[in-house]
Amino acid sequence: MATLIAPKYFSSVEDAENIKKACLGLGTDEKTIISILGHRNATQRKLIRLAYEEIYNEDLIHQLNSELSGDLERAICHWTLDPADRDAVLANNALKASTLDYRIIIEIACVRSAEDLLAVKRAYRFRFKHSLEEDVASCTTGDIRKLLMGIVSAYRYEGNEINETIAELEANIVHNEIKGKAFKTEEIIRVLSTRSKPQLNATFNRYRDIHATSITKASIFEFQGLIGDSTDEYLAALRIVIRCIRDPKKYYAKVLRNAMKTVGIDGDALSRVIVTRAEKDLKEIMELYLKRNNASLEEDVSRDIGGDYKAFLLALLGSD
Amino acid sequence: MATLIAPKYFSSVEDAENIKKACLGLGTDEKTIISILGHRNATQRKLIRLAYEEIYNEDLIHQLNSELSGDLERAICHWTLDPADRDAVLANNALKASTLDYRIIIEIACVRSAEDLLAVKRAYRFRFKHSLEEDVASCTTGDIRKLLMGIVSAYRYEGNEINETIAELEANIVHNEIKGKAFKTEEIIRVLSTRSKPQLNATFNRYRDIHATSITKASIFEFQGLIGDSTDEYLAALRIVIRCIRDPKKYYAKVLRNAMKTVGIDGDALSRVIVTRAEKDLKEIMELYLKRNNASLEEDVSRDIGGDYKAFLLALLGSD
Repeated sequence: MATLIAPKYFSSVEDAENIKKACLGLGTDEKTIISILGHRNATQRKLIRLAYEEIYNEDLIHQLNSELSGDLERAICHWTLDPADRDAVLANNALKASTLDYRIIIEIACVRSAEDLLAVKRAYRFRFKHSLEEDVASCTTGDIRKLLMGIVSAYRYEGNEINETIAELEANIVHNEIKGKAFKTEEIIRVLSTRSKPQLNATFNRYRDIHATSITKASIFEFQGLIGDSTDEYLAALRIVIRCIRDPKKYYAKVLRNAMKTVGIDGDALSRVIVTRAEKDLKEIMELYLKRNNASLEEDVSRDIGGDYKAFLLALLGSD
Repeated sequence: MATLIAPKYFSSVEDAENIKKACLGLGTDEKTIISILGHRNATQRKLIRLAYEEIYNEDLIHQLNSELSGDLERAICHWTLDPADRDAVLANNALKASTLDYRIIIEIACVRSAEDLLAVKRAYRFRFKHSLEEDVASCTTGDIRKLLMGIVSAYRYEGNEINETIAELEANIVHNEIKGKAFKTEEIIRVLSTRSKPQLNATFNRYRDIHATSITKASIFEFQGLIGDSTDEYLAALRIVIRCIRDPKKYYAKVLRNAMKTVGIDGDALSRVIVTRAEKDLKEIMELYLKRNNASLEEDVSRDIGGDYKAFLLALLGSD
């Protein structure tokens, strides 16, 4: 369930006018901007952006970019974008960074539905004049490239039919690759990037039944950090792929916990999860967060973050 | 340009009723069926199929399947399907066959536009409850699998922007792989499966400028048939990918010439090219056919094929 609280009735023209007023004069009235945009769903934000363009002949995102700064600017601008366009921007930022944060690419490829991933690829092509696959291939090498290309290119079947024979067969394929530490990555990548999510979950379940341990706890992943080369990075990415398919909410709760534990806070990750999940399943993610943590996400955000940025995040968390 | 001749005005209900009449009683009136369906475009055929379903509570394709037989049955049924659905069926037939005719997969992946390929993948998922990628991966191995998976998964950028620096760089990458006979397939597959078609054509042009020979005439392809192992098959597939991207009409003209030259005629190929291109570019394909051949395609079909099947093919060729 979503955490966002949005009114049933609203006026896109009034909202656009009030945002414009908040931007005029000396200093920006961030509180007004937050109180409006922090309580509008994707369709409403789209209509506000259209109204703003119509009335002021100016893109709302550009206006926000020039009025705001730092974490708040990034979070509000990402939030105001269409979800597919936002994912395209997040992916492109990740690919352009000096060190690729492949988590972002994996989340987009493995958590989104086939149609949503497709919308991201469409938005990416439109905005960057390249295909997403093209840029992922250019920015990566070796096994990581094979893995990321596989999942980004996927257009998975989304029905619920499961083939138990294939699940058993592929649970063994995955186990043999993991056990043999052969890193013969082709088969495992084929399985992870072509099978439907229900089929993959059946395979993961068979894995657990046969080997009495969850696949993400398989010994190979325990070696992570001991190997210390590119294999290590590949294994970490592989594990994230499995976790994003197996239980995205649990995965996101962990990302949030890590983000809040990082010295100085990993603001990119915190903002990304809240902005992309506030209209989806952030409520359940926050419950999982609370279960494994001594405090709720609202409490942690309230304690460790300040100013308007805190106010905006709390608005999206549904607790301002 | 299309070769199909379809009337501007038609009645889907009348057509459905006339087809039904042609199917009733002893023996089927193939001529009537051909005179109707052989002169209706994709939208019109769709409407006839809907009208037929509505009036007789029966799928027109099933009816045709039970009334017709052999080459004519296959050609008319394929023709009556929606183009994306037809490609899905062609791909699935190819994948189920004892020997995979990878030409069909390559044509669908490399000749169709990004949106059309996507429509095929959607139709495939809907009809076969698997993704196309999933089945391609299950039915293939080794380098052929890498190549086919790459092109089938593609969702290419379709703008006309070209980067000449990348074209030069990648012309060299391709040349080095070909020249070194290293078959280090990854880079060449990355280039062929992620770049836009205009970009790839720029790369092929640079290749020709630098090496004074067309890429499809590169020496490696001349060795084909001398190597005689799976490398041979991979090279053949690679060359088809390049030809389908570089000049699909020329490629199809060659497929037709080979089909007519084969002893007993390669009916699958002949029917596939005519059925899939009659509403697209069959006119130019036929001109190219004539240029390299002593007779026109109509003449060859008239001479070598008989009966109702000939009549149907000639209808699609626009010359009955």
